[in-house]
This record gives sequence, structure tokens and C-alpha cells, in this order.
Amino acid sequence: TKPLKIAVIPGDGIGQEVMPEGVRVVAAAARRFGIAIEFDPIEWASCDYHERTGSMMPSDWKAQVGGHDALYFGAVGWPAKVPDHVSLWGSLLKFRREFDQYVNLRPVRLFEGVPCPLAGRQPGDIDFFVVRENTEGEYTNLGGRIFEGTEREIVIQESVFSRRGTDRVLRYAFELARSRQRRQLTVATKSNGIAISMPWWDERADAMARGYPEVIVDKQHIDILCARFVLQPQRFDVVVASNLFGDILSDLGPACTGTIGLAPSANLNPERNFPSLFEPVHGSAPDIFGLGIANPIAMIWSGALMLQFLGHQAAHDAILRAIELTLKQGPLTPDLGGTATTAQIGAAIEEIV
Amino acid sequence: TKPLKIAVIPGDGIGQEVMPEGVRVVAAAARRFGIAIEFDPIEWASCDYHERTGSMMPSDWKAQVGGHDALYFGAVGWPAKVPDHVSLWGSLLKFRREFDQYVNLRPVRLFEGVPCPLAGRQPGDIDFFVVRENTEGEYTNLGGRIFEGTEREIVIQESVFSRRGTDRVLRYAFELARSRQRRQLTVATKSNGIAISMPWWDERADAMARGYPEVIVDKQHIDILCARFVLQPQRFDVVVASNLFGDILSDLGPACTGTIGLAPSANLNPERNFPSLFEPVHGSAPDIFGLGIANPIAMIWSGALMLQFLGHQAAHDAILRAIELTLKQGPLTPDLGGTATTAQIGAAIEEIV
Ligand SMILES: CC(C)[C@H](C(=O)O)[C@@H](O)C(=O)O
Ligand SMILES: CC(C)[C@H](C(=O)O)[C@@H](O)C(=O)O
Repeated sequence: TKPLKIAVIPGDGIGQEVMPEGVRVVAAAARRFGIAIEFDPIEWASCDYHERTGSMMPSDWKAQVGGHDALYFGAVGWPAKVPDHVSLWGSLLKFRREFDQYVNLRPVRLFEGVPCPLAGRQPGDIDFFVVRENTEGEYTNLGGRIFEGTEREIVIQESVFSRRGTDRVLRYAFELARSRQRRQLTVATKSNGIAISMPWWDERADAMARGYPEVIVDKQHIDILCARFVLQPQRFDVVVASNLFGDILSDLGPACTGTIGLAPSANLNPERNFPSLFEPVHGSAPDIFGLGIANPIAMIWSGALMLQFLGHQAAHDAILRAIELTLKQGPLTPDLGGTATTAQIGAAIEEIV
Repeated sequence: TKPLKIAVIPGDGIGQEVMPEGVRVVAAAARRFGIAIEFDPIEWASCDYHERTGSMMPSDWKAQVGGHDALYFGAVGWPAKVPDHVSLWGSLLKFRREFDQYVNLRPVRLFEGVPCPLAGRQPGDIDFFVVRENTEGEYTNLGGRIFEGTEREIVIQESVFSRRGTDRVLRYAFELARSRQRRQLTVATKSNGIAISMPWWDERADAMARGYPEVIVDKQHIDILCARFVLQPQRFDVVVASNLFGDILSDLGPACTGTIGLAPSANLNPERNFPSLFEPVHGSAPDIFGLGIANPIAMIWSGALMLQFLGHQAAHDAILRAIELTLKQGPLTPDLGGTATTAQIGAAIEEIV
């Protein structure tokens, strides 16, 4: 069989520091489980590339990586070089949209060894998934300015929800909820304030729920839902949300487990018409870039999700066990109170895998 | 001098239970400080009224309360009777918009005696304001459905930001930040994903910042900002946000202080062209309505903010001290681990005032 071809796209800032550790661990797991992988290093999709060429990616980016089995992605963004909306819309958001990665799956889990910022919570209390719509909704560049530059200036921003786009991510979330022991699905909404799209979103969720009588469905407005992440995190099992609300919940959830430095994500095209993309939830963190202390665990865990999606459950499980063990016994990076470097964490996890 | 005329609008659910306690304490403070108040009880702006009449408010609602000094408001919403977007858009959101209450000021504070869900935080660690834009932004009923009811259905939701509307709330927040000891202002944004309105919002914040060199300004994307409310709540002083982001942050902030049952809000028209509106952040809570155990402190604290805005700082301070003392020594409602009723809390606070 042909080796898996994986595009390695470190991007900016600490993306460049954590990526080598991700590749190291994925490669170790591949060796152990006899998986042939060919890593294809990509130097575009970075603000440095933009500084050299004037755009974030070459015009033939789809041809270059569209046939790969997956994209392993670090982080993009360096506001001092390129405005965020330019760098992100020119790379990450393009991948998500043009490769139709409509599910952004983000596990939220409290690990032994990681101090929880919530008082009295134990590992096991927090263990759920955020399923985020990833291609439409609030993230658009539709709209514009009128009376620009004057006192009368008005800015319109449009959100776009399609039935196809909404139903497919709801279906993914309902299926995931049904496959789990608790079978609970929380639907994030804001239909009391956002008066066109969100009441419609609620209707689509209600319609989908009729096909899943065994799933316990619970709709919650995003404001109180965020509050409950802090006050009652144990009540969540699967949470499905629009692009923006999923973005918020998938930073907040990991924060409630101690750090967003651990949180991975899988940008999935479940039909496999295009490669899926696996990346940490954290960003490029210009403030700590170059110090060699970024926590690579989110990158490594994202690699585990990649192997799982590509059919290698055992390799995924081995990496996850190695992460668990490392968090319990150390070494740890400074964000978790340790003194280890990025590379030392990678080496420790590789060792166990 | 003429007495202050205050419209008392309990609304739905626990709004009806906490309002009498609010009025009781405001009245007590007024007696003590020699403030003449005339309370005007309003039975509309409720789902019951909607069931009787088919609308949330009478057509002459502006004439009825537009000349009052303030609106004291409980909570609206009873989804089993009237869909939320109908009940809210027909009452609360109408007040905010038509009375141009463009600042929604929401204090976030950790009190002695309230168990903090965040490990190791002390009273004093969390003490900041969310300044929420309250009349425009993401809360609109602009947009619509096309290809309705078919597989091709598309829904557009428009957000609207005006320069006037944005600048005036930013100015309020910069002024508030400048008046405080730490002079720190956090601007919530999401300009990396929401590509039209939020980059523009950032520009307006940058422009305003040039007029306030003494204010330390910090822009943060809403996702990481929510995470930091949990991980580093002590770093916030004043946070300014759009309508939706302010809604989220002003539920999340209070959750980090233990309960949204305490959080008050002031919907301000700072120019006093129209009455301002004072209401708890919590909703009508159908699940606990009728049990007589709703915590009235958010309602009472909102009453204190009302007296403050109307020029009675000493009355505000007396109520706040009474709240502090009650939280420290009890009695407490069940949400805070006590067994007291709504009325017992009101009586205890009235006693101290
Ligand atoms: C009830 C709802 C429309 C309202 C809002 O979202 O503004 C509430 O959550 C609030 O924060 O005052
Ligand atoms: C960088 C940014 C555009 C991105 C997003 O908002 O989607 C990030 O926050 C994420 O969650 O992946």
C-alpha cells in the first residue's frame, strides 16, 4: 500500500516550534504500528511567506496539497507583519472552506496532573466534545461600509447559514452523541437576540432531533451556556455550535480544564473528498515565540486525531496514553508549572509511544 | 422637588418574585436618605400580557413610561407561552433601542461569602466592569430566508454597526477606564474571523485610544478573552464589547464569581433623553418560578445602580454595603447553599439599609 502523504504546515510563531515535536511523535507511532507515512514539508501559509510574496499561499496551493491524505497544521498569524484577517483568511480559513472541512471537532478533557482552574473538579468530571460548524455562519467577508470615513459611516456584516451546511454538522453531532454513553447533545443558540439566523438554527436542530429520539437534546443560549461551562462542566457530553459560538466554546472549554495549550482540533471533511486538517486550538503566540517553551501537547494530540481519522485507532490510543502519562509524571512546560522545553516534552512522549 | 417616578416592570417568571424585594429595598434606602419616589406598577411587558392581548406591550407604551425617571425591570421570557425572540424583541430589546440605552453597564465582582468556582480566587481578585453596546451590532432582525423550506434554503443575518453607535460606547468605556485606578481597557474583538465589522471595530477602538493616552488598551479576540476570564480574571478592569460579545462576557464574568444570580445591569442613556432601565442579568427562570427561592440580590443591586444613576450615591452605597454584609453573614438562598426564601433575603437587606 502507498504511504500516507501528510502535508506538514508549521505556519507562524510557535507553530514552528511545536510542529517538529508533533511530527516526531506521529512518526514514532507510525513506526511502532507499521504505518507508512511520507511527510511533505510546506513553507507557505505563513506571514513570512506573505512578506516575501505578497500572499499567504501560492496560487497552485490546491494542486500542491489537495491530493494529500491530511494536512498537519501549526498556527498562523503574526499581527505585526500581516493583519490577522488577511493572514487567516488567506490560509487556515481557506483550507477549511475550500476543502469543505465542515466539522471542527474539539475534545475538552481534564487530565490528571493538570491543575484545574475550577475548584474541586476531578479528571473524569470534564470530558466532552465541541462540534463546531466550520465553513459558514458568522465567519464571512460579506458586507461592507457605507458613508465610509464620515460621521454617518455604517458597517454591515452578513452571516450566512445554509440548510445543507447546518444540517450536515447537526447530523454529525447527533451521530456522535448517539454513539456515546450519555447520549446528550447541547445545541448552542442565541435565538432570543439574533432574530433571523438563530431561530432558524433552532428549527433545524428540532427537525434533526426528531430523527434521533434516543439523544437527549438541550438548547441553550450562548451567554448562559458559557456560564455553565464554568459552573457545571460535568453536565456536557456533546455540544454543537455555529462557527463563532463553536470558536468561543472551544477556547472556553479547554480553559476550564486548565490550559488551551493542550487542546487539539480536527477540521474534518467526513466524506473524504478533500484532505482534513489537524491543528492545535492555540494560536501562534508571538509573545513566547523563540523561547522554546511552548507546550507541544496540543500539536501532538492533533496528530493523534489525524491518525485516528486516517483509520489508525491503536496509534491514536498509544499517543493519548503517552500524553496522559506525561501530564501525570512530567516533564511539564512552564504553562503547567514545569521547567521543561518544547523539545523535552516531545522527546518524553516519543519515548513512551 | 418632584418625586422620582419609577416604572416597576416585573415581567415574567421570577421577575415577579424578585421585583417586590427590589422595590422594598429601594424604598427603604429612599426613606433613609430622604429621596421621594413614586413607584408606577406596570403589568405589561410580560408573556401573560401577550397571551391576553397578542402583543407584549400596549401601543402607547412610550407615552406611558417615556417621561419616567427610570424603568426598574425584572425579567422577560416564557418560551412555553411565547417564543423568546418574540417576547424579547417586543419588550426589553425595544426599550433598549427606542430609549437609546446604548450602554449596558455590568459590574463583575467576587464577594466575601460567595464560594468562587475558580480555585484560589479571593474577593478583590475579581472586580471589573463589562461595558456592552446595547442598541445595534449583532442583535438585529435584518436578513431573511431564500429558497425557504427547500434543500437549497439559505439564511442571511445582518449585523449593523454605526460609527456613531460604536464611538459613543467606546467613549463611555474609555472614560470609565480613565476614572479608575488601573486605567485598563480590554477591547473584545474577533477581527481574525469576522472580516468586515470587526476589523472596522478595531479601527474605531484604535482611533478612540489616541484620545486617551493614559488608558492602557488591550485588544483580545472573544475566544481567548473568554478563556482568560477563567484563567486570569484578576487582569481585567474595564472590558468593552459589542452587543453579542458583551452579552456573553456579562454572563461568563458573573459565573466566574460564583453565580449569575447576583449580577445587576444598567441599561443607560447617558444623555438622559430617555429613561434608563435597570435589570438583573439573569432571566425569568421558569424552572424555579413559584418556589419562592429565587435570589433577589441581582434585582436589588440593579436598584442600587438606578439610585446611583439618578444622583443618589449614598443610597447606592448603603444598599451595596447591605448586600455585602448579607452575603457574608447570611441568610442565603439555595443557589448559594442556604435555605432562605426570596422574601427573607429582601427583608434582611432592608433591615441593614
Ligand atoms: C434575554 C436576552 C435577549 C438578553 C440579551 O441577550 O441581551 C439577556 O441575555 C441579557 O443579557 O440581557
Ligand atoms: C485564528 C482564528 C481565525 C481561528 C478561528 O477563529 O477559527 C482560531 O481561533 C480557531 O479557533 O481555530
